[in-house]
Amino acid sequence: MNGAHSLVHTLLKSGVDTCFSNPGTSEMHFVAALDQIPGMRCVLGLQENVVTGMADGYYRMAGKPACTLLHCGPGLANGLGNLHNARRARSSIVNIVGDQATYHRPYDAQLTADTEGWARPVSVWTRTSMSSDAVGRDAAVAVQASRAAPGGIATLILPSDSSWNEGGVVADPLPVTPALPPDPHAVRAAAKVLREGRNVLILIGGTAMREGPQALAWRVAQATGAKILGEMSNARVARGRGRQQLERVPYVANVAIDALKDFEHLILVNSKAPVGFFAYPGKPSKHYPESAQVHVLSRVEQDAEAALQALVDELGAPQAAIPDPGPRPERGRGAPTPEGLARTVAALMPDNAIISDESVSFGRGFYKETHAAPAHDWLQLTGGAIGDGMPVATGAAIGAGGQRRVISLQADGSAMYSLQSLWTQAREKLPVTTIILANRKYQILIGEYRDVGANPGRTAMDMLDLGNPDLNWVKLAEGMGVEAAQATTLEACGDLLAQSVSRNGPFLIELVI
Amino acid sequence: MNGAHSLVHTLLKSGVDTCFSNPGTSEMHFVAALDQIPGMRCVLGLQENVVTGMADGYYRMAGKPACTLLHCGPGLANGLGNLHNARRARSSIVNIVGDQATYHRPYDAQLTADTEGWARPVSVWTRTSMSSDAVGRDAAVAVQASRAAPGGIATLILPSDSSWNEGGVVADPLPVTPALPPDPHAVRAAAKVLREGRNVLILIGGTAMREGPQALAWRVAQATGAKILGEMSNARVARGRGRQQLERVPYVANVAIDALKDFEHLILVNSKAPVGFFAYPGKPSKHYPESAQVHVLSRVEQDAEAALQALVDELGAPQAAIPDPGPRPERGRGAPTPEGLARTVAALMPDNAIISDESVSFGRGFYKETHAAPAHDWLQLTGGAIGDGMPVATGAAIGAGGQRRVISLQADGSAMYSLQSLWTQAREKLPVTTIILANRKYQILIGEYRDVGANPGRTAMDMLDLGNPDLNWVKLAEGMGVEAAQATTLEACGDLLAQSVSRNGPFLIELVI
Repeated sequence: MNGAHSLVHTLLKSGVDTCFSNPGTSEMHFVAALDQIPGMRCVLGLQENVVTGMADGYYRMAGKPACTLLHCGPGLANGLGNLHNARRARSSIVNIVGDQATYHRPYDAQLTADTEGWARPVSVWTRTSMSSDAVGRDAAVAVQASRAAPGGIATLILPSDSSWNEGGVVADPLPVTPALPPDPHAVRAAAKVLREGRNVLILIGGTAMREGPQALAWRVAQATGAKILGEMSNARVARGRGRQQLERVPYVANVAIDALKDFEHLILVNSKAPVGFFAYPGKPSKHYPESAQVHVLSRVEQDAEAALQALVDELGAPQAAIPDPGPRPERGRGAPTPEGLARTVAALMPDNAIISDESVSFGRGFYKETHAAPAHDWLQLTGGAIGDGMPVATGAAIGAGGQRRVISLQADGSAMYSLQSLWTQAREKLPVTTIILANRKYQILIGEYRDVGANPGRTAMDMLDLGNPDLNWVKLAEGMGVEAAQATTLEACGDLLAQSVSRNGPFLIELVI
Repeated sequence: MNGAHSLVHTLLKSGVDTCFSNPGTSEMHFVAALDQIPGMRCVLGLQENVVTGMADGYYRMAGKPACTLLHCGPGLANGLGNLHNARRARSSIVNIVGDQATYHRPYDAQLTADTEGWARPVSVWTRTSMSSDAVGRDAAVAVQASRAAPGGIATLILPSDSSWNEGGVVADPLPVTPALPPDPHAVRAAAKVLREGRNVLILIGGTAMREGPQALAWRVAQATGAKILGEMSNARVARGRGRQQLERVPYVANVAIDALKDFEHLILVNSKAPVGFFAYPGKPSKHYPESAQVHVLSRVEQDAEAALQALVDELGAPQAAIPDPGPRPERGRGAPTPEGLARTVAALMPDNAIISDESVSFGRGFYKETHAAPAHDWLQLTGGAIGDGMPVATGAAIGAGGQRRVISLQADGSAMYSLQSLWTQAREKLPVTTIILANRKYQILIGEYRDVGANPGRTAMDMLDLGNPDLNWVKLAEGMGVEAAQATTLEACGDLLAQSVSRNGPFLIELVI
């Protein structure tokens, strides 16, 4: 058995059965092993940032890692943006990066690069398998490392001779470090603050954004009068009917500072104390009051649900019904507005939909208008590296087994970063409806520019405006095999959305806003 | 004056007047300074690998660096693939990477990443400007570092407070280390080998591929009976009528080994001794004979033309006319073949055209058929990181002042890596004709797969085939504002090419092969 065969067998035994890939010459023996050994679903992406973003979206829904197949240092480099986002999402991913043969590396051929150096900043674990007999063992460790709570990226670099040489040994799965149990001291300390303190914020993040922990946090809040907020950027939030009407820490610095100004205590549940996405002249980095006391109930590697259950028990917090969010919104009408589009999506999304949200500036009002939608999961851009919305949507559709409609709310500027995702959606016939929010500019930056104190002139607008020429998203989608149509009103957008969710496969709506 | 203003003034004083950009919030003061200070041409790319590839192409034609404007670590990461290629091309580029404010960095906000760590593997020089008074000085050093022969990438990381704080100081340009003079001992040693040795190969690369050095190498070869080859991958080669009919070291291992097997001496002129692009089981890494003696006439940081002139003088090599390459080829007919397409391009390219060649497997025969074309420059993928052809074409058009037609010979799989380039071509109305070689597969990999010893099955083909669905390049181009048409014959391709070179602006031909 060669190293590549031992790799595929080990991955399958470890529960990794999906491979997002963009292969090259140095991975041909790995490709051959994937071809010859049944069991791995291989999904091609036409650029590596699509590949890595799909692996991120897959994990968010499947709850287990996929592997990626990347070609040498530059192939990895092309995927680093979405690996950065995946790292912030704490998604478990096993990168397999093919590379030059061990003995060929000193010759510094054209594609030779610092593959390990590029991998480390996004990886919890990085290793190069230096011989075929090490590949299986290294792969098992990679899966173990990636799955250790809270989840992370493991990068296994596979020189081509480690892949093609005989002597491969299949490795058994290694035990995975689960989320750690709550700290009783932290639970008692949080309970004391909640009993005695005033103006207490329970800030939830990470796995605390799932349905179970949210309901427990709600009981705590109801019993103590504390307020709950979610972190600004979250890998996956359980939302809609049956879930609390949770709001998040706002993005805009002044708004966030104002929203947090009265809190005297922050209780962190798998979250971190809120800081600015960026610094601004004269504004503080911390968005919570300097005087506030910060208490950690549960760290990201701990079990948020168990911690909140322990807190409920410690407080003796009674059952508390989640309030009804009111009637399901009706479809919006007329010219597109953020609120109107959010209501349209809330009105039309099927039960158990997945929202992939890279709506950037236009989407800041989406949350509020979708509380009364059917139960759904909401996936966000976690690392701020734009271009993850469409790949995450694509991977999420696969991670959810193709059974749940994904609605991808996608700013146009960010969409251009990874538009190749649409082709994979078409090839895999995935249930993804993309709504391109076509304002034809980097709107968020125009706002930021004005905050600098000036209106953008010609040179600045040349860098902030996406017009001249306008992108035609219908043609771009059709060029990759995805049916598409343009809408300029919410009625038209709603009609197209309703059609798309009632049938199979992907669809794209270019909503001119 | 703030740091950003000192940066723009310093760059302009240092001769950097073109900025390829994709900005974000942390660069808004830099964008404002670019807006307020006249003199910098700012060119937007819709993804950073387009931005960095344009800067590479710009340098190859302009012979001086552009700067890039990139957003934080992930923005840099998105552009690393083409920075890798630019590093291999020894292109001079000054990256300006905006980043978190110095005091904000410890808070590890979402976009915080190891920007320096990602930059170093591609950069000859990396520095973070930690205060506004350092920015001007650091920028001058960055330009100096990037221009030191043979040229490289300098990465200046610009925290947002270094940009917005007052106290900026404009710095004067610093002296640039030119290409170093030849080593007289090396010249005499090479002359001795050429006089006394048998089966001598003069292997030229880098700046030795320009017209002047090529003519000198030709004189040496004519006087001594040595053979001349170019390196496999070159940043820029002077070709066509008036230049020698230079061939390159072949890509395919067996072919290269066969082509080099009889040489007893290699004289390297700004080149390195040929090794495999990849290793293969049972094949040597070195493609030249183990018994061959390798002599270095000139290193990459030395002046190739001066070294070859010194060699001509040492040998007393007489003037030698460059042989006539024969009549200009006639347009090809019928179904597209590599040779037929090359002849069609040779027949129709205007004088002084620029060829950007990322034709991968289909293009291996292009060289031989274009010797009798009018004089032109040929730009290649230097680092093997696919996705540079269209960005390099775009930047080369700008670097050549918009006065020379660029013909971009582009494999479809690689084209999908950086198709956003087309939008910049449309916006800037650049004279670029792209010919997409649409074989709808990663053809090179299917060949490599067969070399592994098997025919690809369904799973392998799912990763090697770009059909299902077919890409429609006419729609993709039109979606980005570039006129386009499909051709299935060489006659139709030739007609479209002839039309496109006779008018302004970009055009795309999808040639189904």
